Amino acid sequence: MARLVPVADPADPRLADYVRLRDVNLRKSLEAEHGLFVAEGEKVIRRAVAAGHPVRSLLMARRWAGPLSDLLDGLDVPVYIVDDATMEGLVGFQVHRGALASLERLPLPQAGALVAGARRVLVLEDLVDHGNVGAIFRCAAALGVDAVVLSPRCADPLYRRSVKVSMGAVFAIPYARMDDWHGGLADLRAAGFTLLALTPDPSAVPLDKAPAGEKTALMLGSEGDGLSSRWLHEADEAVRIPMSPDATSAGVDSLNVVAAAAIACYSLVHTPRL
Amino acid sequence: MARLVPVADPADPRLADYVRLRDVNLRKSLEAEHGLFVAEGEKVIRRAVAAGHPVRSLLMARRWAGPLSDLLDGLDVPVYIVDDATMEGLVGFQVHRGALASLERLPLPQAGALVAGARRVLVLEDLVDHGNVGAIFRCAAALGVDAVVLSPRCADPLYRRSVKVSMGAVFAIPYARMDDWHGGLADLRAAGFTLLALTPDPSAVPLDKAPAGEKTALMLGSEGDGLSSRWLHEADEAVRIPMSPDATSAGVDSLNVVAAAAIACYSLVHTPRL
Ligand SMILES: C[S@@+](CC[C@H](N)C(=O)[O-])C[C@H]1O[C@@H](n2cnc3c(N)ncnc32)[C@H](O)[C@@H]1O
Ligand SMILES: C[S@@+](CC[C@H](N)C(=O)[O-])C[C@H]1O[C@@H](n2cnc3c(N)ncnc32)[C@H](O)[C@@H]1O
Repeated sequence: MARLVPVADPADPRLADYVRLRDVNLRKSLEAEHGLFVAEGEKVIRRAVAAGHPVRSLLMARRWAGPLSDLLDGLDVPVYIVDDATMEGLVGFQVHRGALASLERLPLPQAGALVAGARRVLVLEDLVDHGNVGAIFRCAAALGVDAVVLSPRCADPLYRRSVKVSMGAVFAIPYARMDDWHGGLADLRAAGFTLLALTPDPSAVPLDKAPAGEKTALMLGSEGDGLSSRWLHEADEAVRIPMSPDATSAGVDSLNVVAAAAIACYSLVHTPRL
Repeated sequence: MARLVPVADPADPRLADYVRLRDVNLRKSLEAEHGLFVAEGEKVIRRAVAAGHPVRSLLMARRWAGPLSDLLDGLDVPVYIVDDATMEGLVGFQVHRGALASLERLPLPQAGALVAGARRVLVLEDLVDHGNVGAIFRCAAALGVDAVVLSPRCADPLYRRSVKVSMGAVFAIPYARMDDWHGGLADLRAAGFTLLALTPDPSAVPLDKAPAGEKTALMLGSEGDGLSSRWLHEADEAVRIPMSPDATSAGVDSLNVVAAAAIACYSLVHTPRL
Protein backbone atom coordinates (compact mmCIF):
# COMPACT_ATOMS: atom_id res chain seq x y z
CA MET A 1 0.00 0.00 0.00
CA ALA A 2 1.28 3.43 -1.03
CA ARG A 3 2.51 5.81 1.70
CA LEU A 4 1.35 9.46 1.68
CA VAL A 5 4.43 11.65 2.26
CA PRO A 6 3.79 15.40 2.64
CA VAL A 7 6.61 17.51 1.13
CA ALA A 8 6.79 21.31 1.34
CA ASP A 9 9.99 22.25 -0.50
CA PRO A 10 9.98 22.09 -4.31
CA ALA A 11 13.77 21.54 -4.13
CA ASP A 12 13.38 18.38 -2.00
CA PRO A 13 15.54 15.72 -3.69
CA ARG A 14 12.78 13.12 -3.34
CA LEU A 15 10.82 15.12 -5.95
CA ALA A 16 13.70 15.14 -8.45
CA ASP A 17 11.86 12.93 -10.98
CA TYR A 18 9.33 15.73 -11.52
CA VAL A 19 11.53 18.77 -11.91
CA ARG A 20 10.89 21.30 -14.72
CA LEU A 21 8.57 19.18 -16.84
CA ARG A 22 8.55 21.68 -19.71
CA ASP A 23 12.32 21.88 -20.06
CA VAL A 24 12.75 19.44 -22.95
CA ASN A 25 16.53 19.23 -22.84
CA LEU A 26 16.71 18.72 -19.10
CA ARG A 27 13.94 16.12 -19.20
CA LYS A 28 15.58 14.19 -22.05
CA SER A 29 18.82 13.68 -20.15
CA LEU A 30 17.15 13.13 -16.77
CA GLU A 31 14.68 10.58 -18.12
CA ALA A 32 17.35 8.74 -20.12
CA GLU A 33 19.71 8.60 -17.16
CA HIS A 34 17.12 7.14 -14.80
CA GLY A 35 15.06 5.20 -17.35
CA LEU A 36 11.89 6.93 -16.22
CA PHE A 37 9.00 8.89 -17.66
CA VAL A 38 6.19 10.97 -16.19
CA ALA A 39 2.48 10.41 -16.75
CA GLU A 40 -0.11 13.10 -16.05
CA GLY A 41 -3.73 12.62 -15.06
CA GLU A 42 -5.64 9.75 -13.58
CA LYS A 43 -6.65 8.08 -16.83
CA VAL A 44 -3.18 8.06 -18.32
CA ILE A 45 -1.56 6.91 -15.07
CA ARG A 46 -3.96 3.98 -14.84
CA ARG A 47 -3.16 2.98 -18.42
CA ALA A 48 0.58 3.17 -17.82
CA VAL A 49 0.26 0.96 -14.74
CA ALA A 50 -2.00 -1.48 -16.58
CA ALA A 51 0.61 -1.66 -19.35
CA GLY A 52 3.07 -3.02 -16.82
CA HIS A 53 5.27 0.01 -16.14
CA PRO A 54 6.60 -0.19 -12.57
CA VAL A 55 5.75 2.95 -10.58
CA ARG A 56 8.60 4.85 -8.87
CA SER A 57 6.41 7.38 -7.05
CA LEU A 58 3.37 9.61 -7.41
CA LEU A 59 2.95 13.33 -6.81
CA MET A 60 -0.33 15.09 -6.15
CA ALA A 61 -2.33 17.56 -4.11
CA ARG A 62 -4.03 15.88 -1.16
CA ARG A 63 -7.50 16.20 -2.72
CA TRP A 64 -6.51 13.67 -5.41
CA ALA A 65 -5.58 10.88 -3.02
CA GLY A 66 -9.26 9.99 -2.47
CA PRO A 67 -10.30 9.47 -6.11
CA LEU A 68 -7.13 7.42 -6.70
CA SER A 69 -7.31 5.34 -3.51
CA ASP A 70 -8.01 2.04 -5.27
CA LEU A 71 -4.91 2.54 -7.43
CA LEU A 72 -2.77 3.65 -4.48
CA ASP A 73 -3.87 0.62 -2.44
CA GLY A 74 -2.22 -1.68 -4.94
CA LEU A 75 1.13 0.15 -5.05
CA ASP A 76 4.04 0.00 -2.64
CA VAL A 77 5.58 3.40 -3.43
CA PRO A 78 5.70 6.88 -1.91
CA VAL A 79 2.92 9.31 -2.83
CA TYR A 80 4.32 12.81 -2.39
CA ILE A 81 1.63 15.21 -1.25
CA VAL A 82 2.25 18.85 -2.11
CA ASP A 83 0.24 22.05 -2.22
CA ASP A 84 -0.44 23.82 -5.51
CA ALA A 85 2.37 26.35 -5.06
CA THR A 86 4.98 23.64 -4.40
CA MET A 87 3.72 21.72 -7.40
CA GLU A 88 4.03 24.77 -9.65
CA GLY A 89 7.46 25.65 -8.26
CA LEU A 90 8.66 22.12 -8.95
CA VAL A 91 7.21 21.24 -12.34
CA GLY A 92 7.07 24.79 -13.73
CA PHE A 93 3.36 25.20 -14.45
CA GLN A 94 -0.05 24.59 -12.95
CA VAL A 95 -1.02 20.92 -13.16
CA HIS A 96 -4.75 20.83 -13.84
CA ARG A 97 -5.15 17.09 -14.09
CA GLY A 98 -4.16 16.59 -10.50
CA ALA A 99 -1.83 13.66 -10.24
CA LEU A 100 1.57 12.91 -11.75
CA ALA A 101 3.36 9.57 -11.65
CA SER A 102 6.98 8.69 -12.31
CA LEU A 103 7.22 5.28 -13.99
CA GLU A 104 9.93 3.03 -15.32
CA ARG A 105 10.46 2.59 -19.03
CA LEU A 106 10.41 -0.97 -20.36
CA PRO A 107 12.85 -2.34 -22.94
CA LEU A 108 11.56 -1.75 -26.50
CA PRO A 109 11.35 -4.61 -29.02
CA GLN A 110 13.66 -4.69 -32.03
CA ALA A 111 12.00 -3.20 -35.13
CA GLY A 112 12.24 -6.50 -37.01
CA ALA A 113 10.53 -8.46 -34.24
CA LEU A 114 7.89 -5.73 -33.84
CA VAL A 115 6.71 -5.77 -37.43
CA ALA A 116 6.90 -9.54 -37.96
CA GLY A 117 3.22 -10.04 -37.19
CA ALA A 118 1.97 -6.62 -38.31
CA ARG A 119 0.05 -5.66 -41.46
CA ARG A 120 -0.20 -1.88 -41.13
CA VAL A 121 2.70 0.11 -39.81
CA LEU A 122 3.59 3.79 -39.51
CA VAL A 123 7.21 4.86 -39.79
CA LEU A 124 8.05 8.30 -38.37
CA GLU A 125 11.26 10.04 -39.42
CA ASP A 126 12.67 12.63 -37.04
CA LEU A 127 9.43 14.23 -35.86
CA VAL A 128 10.29 17.02 -33.43
CA ASP A 129 6.99 17.90 -31.81
CA HIS A 130 5.87 15.63 -28.96
CA GLY A 131 2.25 16.64 -29.42
CA ASN A 132 2.39 15.44 -33.01
CA VAL A 133 3.89 12.08 -32.00
CA GLY A 134 1.18 11.62 -29.37
CA ALA A 135 -1.59 12.62 -31.78
CA ILE A 136 -0.30 10.15 -34.38
CA PHE A 137 -0.39 7.32 -31.81
CA ARG A 138 -3.98 8.29 -31.04
CA CYS A 139 -4.81 8.10 -34.77
CA ALA A 140 -3.02 4.76 -35.03
CA ALA A 141 -5.10 3.31 -32.20
CA ALA A 142 -8.35 4.82 -33.49
CA LEU A 143 -7.85 3.67 -37.07
CA GLY A 144 -6.37 0.21 -36.62
CA VAL A 145 -2.64 0.58 -37.25
CA ASP A 146 -0.71 -2.35 -35.72
CA ALA A 147 2.64 -0.79 -34.84
CA VAL A 148 4.84 2.31 -35.13
CA VAL A 149 8.53 2.38 -36.03
CA LEU A 150 10.54 5.46 -35.06
CA SER A 151 13.72 6.76 -36.64
CA PRO A 152 16.63 7.01 -34.19
CA ARG A 153 16.09 10.75 -33.64
CA CYS A 154 12.29 10.87 -33.64
CA ALA A 155 10.68 12.56 -30.59
CA ASP A 156 9.94 10.29 -27.63
CA PRO A 157 6.41 8.80 -27.30
CA LEU A 158 6.87 8.63 -23.52
CA TYR A 159 7.61 12.32 -23.09
CA ARG A 160 4.87 13.75 -20.86
CA ARG A 161 3.20 15.72 -23.61
CA SER A 162 3.24 12.82 -26.10
CA VAL A 163 1.63 10.53 -23.55
CA LYS A 164 -1.03 13.09 -22.70
CA VAL A 165 -1.96 13.97 -26.28
CA SER A 166 -2.06 10.27 -27.21
CA MET A 167 -4.68 9.70 -24.46
CA GLY A 168 -2.53 6.75 -23.42
CA ALA A 169 -2.42 5.14 -26.88
CA VAL A 170 1.39 5.04 -26.54
CA PHE A 171 0.79 2.19 -24.07
CA ALA A 172 -1.47 0.29 -26.45
CA ILE A 173 0.25 0.54 -29.83
CA PRO A 174 3.55 -1.34 -29.79
CA TYR A 175 6.50 0.58 -31.15
CA ALA A 176 10.22 0.24 -31.73
CA ARG A 177 13.06 2.63 -32.40
CA MET A 178 15.52 1.83 -35.20
CA ASP A 179 19.14 1.51 -34.13
CA ASP A 180 20.32 2.76 -37.44
CA TRP A 181 18.76 5.42 -39.64
CA HIS A 182 20.82 4.48 -42.66
CA GLY A 183 19.73 0.87 -42.88
CA GLY A 184 16.57 1.17 -40.83
CA LEU A 185 14.08 0.50 -43.60
CA ALA A 186 15.72 -2.83 -44.47
CA ASP A 187 13.96 -4.62 -41.61
CA LEU A 188 10.60 -3.54 -42.97
CA ARG A 189 11.45 -4.59 -46.49
CA ALA A 190 12.76 -7.93 -45.22
CA ALA A 191 9.45 -8.45 -43.43
CA GLY A 192 7.59 -8.04 -46.72
CA PHE A 193 6.29 -4.50 -46.36
CA THR A 194 5.45 -2.18 -49.24
CA LEU A 195 7.00 1.15 -48.24
CA LEU A 196 4.91 4.21 -49.11
CA ALA A 197 6.61 7.58 -48.58
CA LEU A 198 4.05 10.32 -47.84
CA THR A 199 5.07 13.62 -49.39
CA PRO A 200 3.29 16.73 -50.70
CA ASP A 201 5.53 16.55 -53.82
CA PRO A 202 3.22 17.07 -56.83
CA SER A 203 5.08 14.41 -58.81
CA ALA A 204 4.13 11.68 -56.30
CA VAL A 205 1.27 9.25 -56.95
CA PRO A 206 -2.10 10.38 -55.49
CA LEU A 207 -3.10 8.48 -52.37
CA ASP A 208 -6.08 6.72 -53.96
CA LYS A 209 -3.78 5.30 -56.66
CA ALA A 210 -1.13 4.06 -54.22
CA PRO A 211 -0.05 0.46 -54.77
CA ALA A 212 -1.92 -2.09 -52.69
CA GLY A 213 0.09 -4.50 -50.61
CA GLU A 214 -0.55 -7.28 -48.17
CA LYS A 215 1.61 -5.41 -45.67
CA THR A 216 1.94 -1.66 -45.91
CA ALA A 217 4.23 0.80 -44.13
CA LEU A 218 3.30 4.49 -44.32
CA MET A 219 6.35 6.72 -43.91
CA LEU A 220 5.88 10.24 -42.55
CA GLY A 221 8.50 12.99 -42.41
CA SER A 222 9.45 15.71 -39.99
CA GLU A 223 7.49 18.93 -39.47
CA GLY A 224 10.09 21.13 -41.12
CA ASP A 225 11.83 19.33 -43.95
CA GLY A 226 9.68 16.26 -44.47
CA LEU A 227 11.20 12.89 -45.38
CA SER A 228 14.92 12.72 -46.09
CA SER A 229 15.84 12.15 -49.71
CA ARG A 230 17.48 8.88 -48.69
CA TRP A 231 14.23 7.51 -47.33
CA LEU A 232 12.22 8.93 -50.23
CA HIS A 233 14.47 7.04 -52.60
CA GLU A 234 14.31 3.81 -50.63
CA ALA A 235 10.51 3.77 -50.62
CA ASP A 236 8.59 1.65 -53.10
CA GLU A 237 6.45 4.63 -54.02
CA ALA A 238 6.15 8.30 -53.16
CA VAL A 239 2.50 9.05 -52.41
CA ARG A 240 0.76 12.41 -52.06
CA ILE A 241 -2.50 13.59 -50.59
CA PRO A 242 -3.69 15.91 -53.36
CA MET A 243 -3.79 19.52 -52.27
CA SER A 244 -6.13 22.23 -53.45
CA PRO A 245 -4.81 24.36 -56.33
CA ASP A 246 -5.44 27.40 -54.09
CA ALA A 247 -3.31 26.09 -51.21
CA THR A 248 -0.07 27.63 -52.44
CA SER A 249 -1.53 31.10 -52.77
CA ALA A 250 -2.89 30.65 -49.22
CA GLY A 251 0.70 30.04 -48.10
CA VAL A 252 0.08 26.39 -47.27
CA ASP A 253 2.57 24.02 -48.92
CA SER A 254 1.71 20.88 -46.96
CA LEU A 255 -0.63 19.36 -44.43
CA ASN A 256 0.47 19.12 -40.84
CA VAL A 257 1.92 15.70 -40.22
CA VAL A 258 -0.95 14.58 -37.95
CA ALA A 259 -3.53 15.50 -40.60
CA ALA A 260 -1.48 13.68 -43.24
CA ALA A 261 -1.13 10.61 -41.00
CA ALA A 262 -4.87 10.58 -40.28
CA ILE A 263 -5.85 10.75 -43.94
CA ALA A 264 -3.29 8.16 -44.98
CA CYS A 265 -4.33 5.72 -42.22
CA TYR A 266 -7.99 6.18 -43.07
CA SER A 267 -7.28 5.54 -46.72
CA LEU A 268 -5.12 2.51 -45.91
CA VAL A 269 -7.86 0.93 -43.86
CA HIS A 270 -10.95 1.98 -45.82
CA THR A 271 -10.05 2.20 -49.48
CA PRO A 272 -10.50 -1.14 -51.20
CA ARG A 273 -7.50 -0.38 -53.47
CA LEU A 274 -5.01 -0.40 -50.60
CA MET B 1 8.54 54.36 -43.49
CA ALA B 2 8.55 52.60 -40.10
CA ARG B 3 10.49 54.20 -37.22
CA LEU B 4 12.81 52.05 -35.10
CA VAL B 5 12.14 52.89 -31.44
CA PRO B 6 14.43 51.23 -28.86
CA VAL B 7 12.58 50.37 -25.62
CA ALA B 8 14.27 48.93 -22.51
CA ASP B 9 11.46 48.50 -20.00
CA PRO B 10 9.02 45.58 -20.49
CA ALA B 11 6.45 47.65 -18.56
CA ASP B 12 6.64 50.55 -21.04
CA PRO B 13 3.01 51.35 -21.97
CA ARG B 14 3.88 51.57 -25.65
CA LEU B 15 4.40 47.80 -25.56
CA ALA B 16 0.99 47.11 -23.99
CA ASP B 17 -0.34 45.32 -27.11
CA TYR B 18 2.18 42.52 -26.54
CA VAL B 19 1.83 41.84 -22.84
CA ARG B 20 1.63 38.24 -21.54
CA LEU B 21 0.89 36.52 -24.83
CA ARG B 22 0.23 33.15 -23.17
CA ASP B 23 -2.35 34.46 -20.72
CA VAL B 24 -5.49 33.49 -22.63
CA ASN B 25 -7.98 35.35 -20.44
CA LEU B 26 -5.99 38.56 -20.37
CA ARG B 27 -5.40 38.41 -24.12
CA LYS B 28 -9.08 37.79 -24.89
CA SER B 29 -10.22 40.91 -23.09
CA LEU B 30 -7.29 43.05 -24.24
CA GLU B 31 -7.66 42.04 -27.89
CA ALA B 32 -11.42 42.48 -27.86
CA GLU B 33 -11.17 45.88 -26.23
CA HIS B 34 -8.69 47.22 -28.75
CA GLY B 35 -9.77 45.19 -31.78
CA LEU B 36 -6.25 43.91 -32.26
CA PHE B 37 -4.41 40.63 -32.66
CA VAL B 38 -0.76 39.62 -32.64
CA ALA B 39 1.06 37.78 -35.41
CA GLU B 40 4.37 35.98 -34.85
CA GLY B 41 7.10 35.35 -37.36
CA GLU B 42 8.01 36.96 -40.65
CA LYS B 43 5.92 34.73 -42.89
CA VAL B 44 2.73 35.11 -40.89
CA ILE B 45 3.18 38.87 -40.49
CA ARG B 46 3.61 39.31 -44.23
CA ARG B 47 0.44 37.30 -44.86
CA ALA B 48 -1.52 39.34 -42.35
CA VAL B 49 -0.40 42.58 -43.98
CA ALA B 50 -1.13 41.22 -47.46
CA ALA B 51 -4.63 40.30 -46.24
CA GLY B 52 -5.25 43.98 -45.53
CA HIS B 53 -4.94 44.12 -41.75
CA PRO B 54 -3.68 47.58 -40.75
CA VAL B 55 -0.52 47.36 -38.63
CA ARG B 56 -0.47 49.11 -35.23
CA SER B 57 3.19 48.42 -34.43
CA LEU B 58 5.93 45.80 -34.59
CA LEU B 59 8.20 44.43 -31.90
CA MET B 60 11.51 42.69 -32.50
CA ALA B 61 15.16 42.29 -31.61
CA ARG B 62 17.37 44.60 -33.67
CA ARG B 63 18.79 41.71 -35.72
CA TRP B 64 15.37 41.17 -37.33
CA ALA B 65 15.03 44.69 -38.72
CA GLY B 66 17.38 43.87 -41.63
CA PRO B 67 15.55 40.81 -43.02
CA LEU B 68 12.23 42.67 -42.71
CA SER B 69 13.42 46.00 -44.14
CA ASP B 70 11.34 45.78 -47.32
CA LEU B 71 8.21 45.25 -45.23
CA LEU B 72 9.14 48.01 -42.76
CA ASP B 73 9.80 50.45 -45.61
CA GLY B 74 6.17 50.24 -46.61
CA LEU B 75 4.71 50.85 -43.15
CA ASP B 76 4.25 54.07 -41.22
CA VAL B 77 4.24 52.63 -37.70
CA PRO B 78 6.63 52.33 -34.77
CA VAL B 79 8.92 49.29 -34.67
CA TYR B 80 9.83 48.70 -31.04
CA ILE B 81 13.34 47.33 -30.72
CA VAL B 82 14.00 45.32 -27.57
CA ASP B 83 16.65 42.93 -26.34
CA ASP B 84 15.81 39.26 -25.69
CA ALA B 85 15.39 39.74 -21.93
CA THR B 86 12.92 42.61 -22.36
CA MET B 87 11.02 40.58 -24.93
CA GLU B 88 10.75 37.60 -22.60
CA GLY B 89 9.78 39.80 -19.63
CA LEU B 90 7.03 41.39 -21.71
CA VAL B 91 5.47 38.50 -23.61
CA GLY B 92 6.27 35.77 -21.07
CA PHE B 93 8.40 33.37 -23.11
CA GLN B 94 11.28 33.32 -25.57
CA VAL B 95 10.19 34.35 -29.04
CA HIS B 96 12.15 32.23 -31.48
CA ARG B 97 10.61 33.52 -34.67
CA GLY B 98 11.97 36.96 -34.11
CA ALA B 99 9.32 39.49 -34.92
CA LEU B 100 5.86 40.17 -33.56
CA ALA B 101 3.28 42.51 -35.03
CA SER B 102 0.13 44.01 -33.56
CA LEU B 103 -2.55 44.32 -36.22
CA GLU B 104 -6.15 45.48 -36.45
CA ARG B 105 -8.98 43.03 -36.82
CA LEU B 106 -11.34 43.55 -39.75
CA PRO B 107 -15.12 43.23 -39.55
CA LEU B 108 -16.23 39.64 -40.23
CA PRO B 109 -18.91 38.86 -42.81
CA GLN B 110 -22.31 37.56 -41.73
CA ALA B 111 -22.49 33.76 -41.89
CA GLY B 112 -25.28 33.88 -44.49
CA ALA B 113 -23.31 36.15 -46.80
CA LEU B 114 -20.16 34.09 -46.29
CA VAL B 115 -21.63 30.79 -47.40
CA ALA B 116 -23.74 32.13 -50.25
CA GLY B 117 -21.08 31.34 -52.85
CA ALA B 118 -19.46 28.40 -51.07
CA ARG B 119 -19.75 24.68 -51.81
CA ARG B 120 -17.73 23.12 -48.98
CA VAL B 121 -17.90 24.54 -45.52
CA LEU B 122 -16.66 23.53 -42.07
CA VAL B 123 -18.71 24.43 -39.01
CA LEU B 124 -16.87 24.38 -35.67
CA GLU B 125 -18.84 24.20 -32.44
CA ASP B 126 -17.13 25.52 -29.31
CA LEU B 127 -13.60 24.29 -29.97
CA VAL B 128 -11.42 25.31 -27.04
CA ASP B 129 -7.88 24.73 -28.25
CA HIS B 130 -6.40 27.47 -30.43
CA GLY B 131 -3.88 25.06 -31.93
CA ASN B 132 -6.74 22.86 -33.13
CA VAL B 133 -8.55 25.82 -34.71
CA GLY B 134 -5.36 26.86 -36.50
CA ALA B 135 -4.62 23.32 -37.69
CA ILE B 136 -8.16 22.98 -39.05
CA PHE B 137 -7.75 26.20 -41.06
CA ARG B 138 -4.52 24.78 -42.46
CA CYS B 139 -6.38 21.60 -43.48
CA ALA B 140 -9.16 23.66 -44.99
CA ALA B 141 -6.71 25.60 -47.14
CA ALA B 142 -4.74 22.49 -48.11
CA LEU B 143 -7.78 20.44 -49.04
CA GLY B 144 -9.99 22.99 -50.76
CA VAL B 145 -12.64 23.98 -48.22
CA ASP B 146 -14.24 27.32 -49.16
CA ALA B 147 -15.18 28.79 -45.77
CA VAL B 148 -15.42 28.15 -42.04
CA VAL B 149 -18.34 29.06 -39.78
CA LEU B 150 -17.69 29.31 -36.03
CA SER B 151 -20.15 28.90 -33.19
CA PRO B 152 -20.42 31.99 -30.96
CA ARG B 153 -18.08 30.49 -28.34
CA CYS B 154 -15.55 28.78 -30.61
CA ALA B 155 -11.89 29.68 -29.99
CA ASP B 156 -10.56 32.67 -31.94
CA PRO B 157 -8.73 32.04 -35.26
CA LEU B 158 -6.76 35.26 -34.74
CA TYR B 159 -5.35 34.28 -31.36
CA ARG B 160 -1.56 34.18 -31.74
CA ARG B 161 -1.29 30.40 -31.51
CA SER B 162 -4.15 29.77 -33.97
CA VAL B 163 -2.54 32.08 -36.51
CA LYS B 164 0.85 30.43 -36.08
CA VAL B 165 -0.37 26.84 -36.32
CA SER B 166 -2.51 27.73 -39.35
CA MET B 167 0.64 28.96 -41.16
CA GLY B 168 -1.41 32.03 -42.02
CA ALA B 169 -4.33 30.10 -43.53
CA VAL B 170 -6.64 32.10 -41.22
CA PHE B 171 -5.98 35.02 -43.59
CA ALA B 172 -6.82 33.01 -46.69
CA ILE B 173 -9.93 31.03 -45.75
CA PRO B 174 -12.88 33.35 -45.17
CA TYR B 175 -14.79 32.76 -41.98
CA ALA B 176 -17.72 34.08 -39.97
CA ARG B 177 -18.92 33.77 -36.43
CA MET B 178 -22.60 33.02 -35.79
CA ASP B 179 -24.43 35.59 -33.68
CA ASP B 180 -26.69 32.97 -32.29
CA TRP B 181 -25.86 29.39 -31.40
CA HIS B 182 -29.49 28.36 -31.15
CA GLY B 183 -30.52 29.31 -34.66
CA GLY B 184 -27.05 29.38 -36.18
CA LEU B 185 -27.47 26.44 -38.52
CA ALA B 186 -30.54 27.95 -40.16
CA ASP B 187 -28.42 30.22 -42.39
CA LEU B 188 -26.60 27.20 -43.76
CA ARG B 189 -29.79 25.31 -44.37
CA ALA B 190 -31.33 28.35 -46.05
CA ALA B 191 -28.29 28.52 -48.33
CA GLY B 192 -28.95 24.95 -49.48
CA PHE B 193 -26.30 23.08 -47.50
CA THR B 194 -26.54 19.44 -46.49
CA LEU B 195 -25.46 19.42 -42.84
CA LEU B 196 -23.30 16.45 -41.83
CA ALA B 197 -22.58 16.11 -38.10
CA LEU B 198 -19.25 14.34 -37.49
CA THR B 199 -19.42 12.11 -34.43
CA PRO B 200 -17.71 8.92 -33.23
CA ASP B 201 -21.17 7.57 -32.28
CA PRO B 202 -21.31 3.96 -33.59
CA SER B 203 -24.92 4.43 -34.69
CA ALA B 204 -23.96 7.16 -37.17
CA VAL B 205 -23.58 6.50 -40.90
CA PRO B 206 -19.99 5.64 -41.98
CA LEU B 207 -18.24 8.47 -43.80
CA ASP B 208 -18.08 6.69 -47.15
CA LYS B 209 -21.89 6.25 -47.09
CA ALA B 210 -22.62 9.86 -46.18
CA PRO B 211 -25.25 11.52 -48.37
CA ALA B 212 -23.85 13.46 -51.30
CA GLY B 213 -24.93 17.05 -51.71
CA GLU B 214 -24.23 19.89 -54.08
CA LYS B 215 -23.26 21.97 -51.04
CA THR B 216 -21.97 20.25 -47.94
CA ALA B 217 -21.26 21.56 -44.44
CA LEU B 218 -19.15 19.34 -42.15
CA MET B 219 -19.90 20.02 -38.49
CA LEU B 220 -17.19 19.30 -35.90
CA GLY B 221 -17.59 19.34 -32.13
CA SER B 222 -15.51 20.42 -29.18
CA GLU B 223 -12.50 18.52 -27.85
CA GLY B 224 -14.23 17.40 -24.69
CA ASP B 225 -17.91 16.77 -25.27
CA GLY B 226 -18.20 16.77 -29.03
CA LEU B 227 -21.23 18.26 -30.81
CA SER B 228 -24.16 19.42 -28.71
CA SER B 229 -27.25 17.26 -28.93
CA ARG B 230 -29.12 20.22 -30.37
CA TRP B 231 -26.79 20.47 -33.33
CA LEU B 232 -26.65 16.71 -33.73
CA HIS B 233 -30.42 16.69 -34.05
CA GLU B 234 -30.52 19.58 -36.47
CA ALA B 235 -28.05 17.93 -38.85
CA ASP B 236 -29.29 16.13 -41.93
CA GLU B 237 -27.17 13.12 -41.01
CA ALA B 238 -24.80 12.02 -38.25
CA VAL B 239 -21.64 10.67 -39.87
CA ARG B 240 -18.81 8.67 -38.29
CA ILE B 241 -15.28 7.86 -39.27
CA PRO B 242 -15.20 4.15 -38.46
CA MET B 243 -12.86 3.34 -35.60
CA SER B 244 -10.88 0.17 -35.06
CA PRO B 245 -12.59 -2.44 -32.86
CA ASP B 246 -9.44 -2.33 -30.67
CA ALA B 247 -9.61 1.43 -30.10
CA THR B 248 -11.80 1.20 -27.01
CA SER B 249 -9.52 -1.24 -25.23
CA ALA B 250 -6.63 1.10 -26.09
CA GLY B 251 -8.54 3.85 -24.23
CA VAL B 252 -9.25 5.84 -27.39
CA ASP B 253 -12.91 6.73 -27.86
CA SER B 254 -12.54 9.27 -30.64
CA LEU B 255 -10.12 10.90 -33.04
CA ASN B 256 -8.71 14.27 -32.20
CA VAL B 257 -10.77 16.94 -33.91
CA VAL B 258 -8.00 17.92 -36.34
CA ALA B 259 -7.56 14.32 -37.49
CA ALA B 260 -11.34 13.98 -37.88
CA ALA B 261 -11.51 17.25 -39.84
CA ALA B 262 -8.65 16.17 -42.12
CA ILE B 263 -10.22 12.81 -42.93
CA ALA B 264 -13.67 14.30 -43.46
CA CYS B 265 -12.37 17.08 -45.74
CA TYR B 266 -10.33 14.59 -47.74
CA SER B 267 -13.32 12.34 -48.14
CA LEU B 268 -15.56 15.28 -49.08
CA VAL B 269 -13.21 16.36 -51.81
CA HIS B 270 -11.96 13.00 -53.09
CA THR B 271 -14.72 10.43 -52.71
CA PRO B 272 -16.96 10.37 -55.77
CA ARG B 273 -19.98 9.63 -53.52
CA LEU B 274 -19.83 12.96 -51.76
C1 LIG C 1 4.73 19.46 -42.60
S1 LIG C 1 5.03 18.15 -43.67
C2 LIG C 1 6.67 18.49 -44.28
C3 LIG C 1 6.68 19.50 -45.36
C4 LIG C 1 7.97 19.49 -46.15
N1 LIG C 1 8.18 20.82 -46.66
C5 LIG C 1 7.89 18.48 -47.30
O1 LIG C 1 7.95 18.92 -48.47
O2 LIG C 1 7.78 17.28 -47.07
C6 LIG C 1 5.35 16.78 -42.62
C7 LIG C 1 5.02 15.44 -43.22
O3 LIG C 1 3.60 15.34 -43.41
C8 LIG C 1 3.34 14.55 -44.56
N2 LIG C 1 2.56 15.36 -45.50
C9 LIG C 1 2.24 16.66 -45.39
N3 LIG C 1 1.48 17.04 -46.43
C10 LIG C 1 1.30 15.96 -47.21
C11 LIG C 1 0.61 15.71 -48.44
N4 LIG C 1 -0.10 16.66 -49.06
N5 LIG C 1 0.66 14.46 -48.95
C12 LIG C 1 1.33 13.48 -48.32
N6 LIG C 1 2.02 13.66 -47.18
C13 LIG C 1 2.00 14.88 -46.63
C14 LIG C 1 4.68 14.12 -45.15
O4 LIG C 1 5.04 12.84 -44.67
C15 LIG C 1 5.62 15.17 -44.58
O5 LIG C 1 6.95 14.69 -44.48
C1 LIG D 1 -12.42 14.63 -29.48
S1 LIG D 1 -13.86 14.51 -30.39
C2 LIG D 1 -15.13 14.61 -29.17
C3 LIG D 1 -15.37 13.32 -28.50
C4 LIG D 1 -16.70 13.26 -27.78
N1 LIG D 1 -16.57 12.38 -26.66
C5 LIG D 1 -17.82 12.80 -28.71
O1 LIG D 1 -18.37 11.74 -28.44
O2 LIG D 1 -18.12 13.47 -29.71
C6 LIG D 1 -14.01 16.08 -31.17
C7 LIG D 1 -14.76 16.06 -32.47
O3 LIG D 1 -14.01 15.35 -33.45
C8 LIG D 1 -14.90 14.70 -34.34
N2 LIG D 1 -14.62 13.25 -34.27
C9 LIG D 1 -13.76 12.60 -33.45
N3 LIG D 1 -13.75 11.28 -33.71
C10 LIG D 1 -14.60 11.08 -34.73
C11 LIG D 1 -15.02 9.92 -35.48
N4 LIG D 1 -14.53 8.71 -35.23
N5 LIG D 1 -15.93 10.12 -36.46
C12 LIG D 1 -16.41 11.33 -36.75
N6 LIG D 1 -16.06 12.45 -36.08
C13 LIG D 1 -15.16 12.33 -35.09
C14 LIG D 1 -16.31 15.01 -33.88
O4 LIG D 1 -16.82 16.11 -34.62
C15 LIG D 1 -16.10 15.39 -32.42
O5 LIG D 1 -17.12 16.26 -31.97
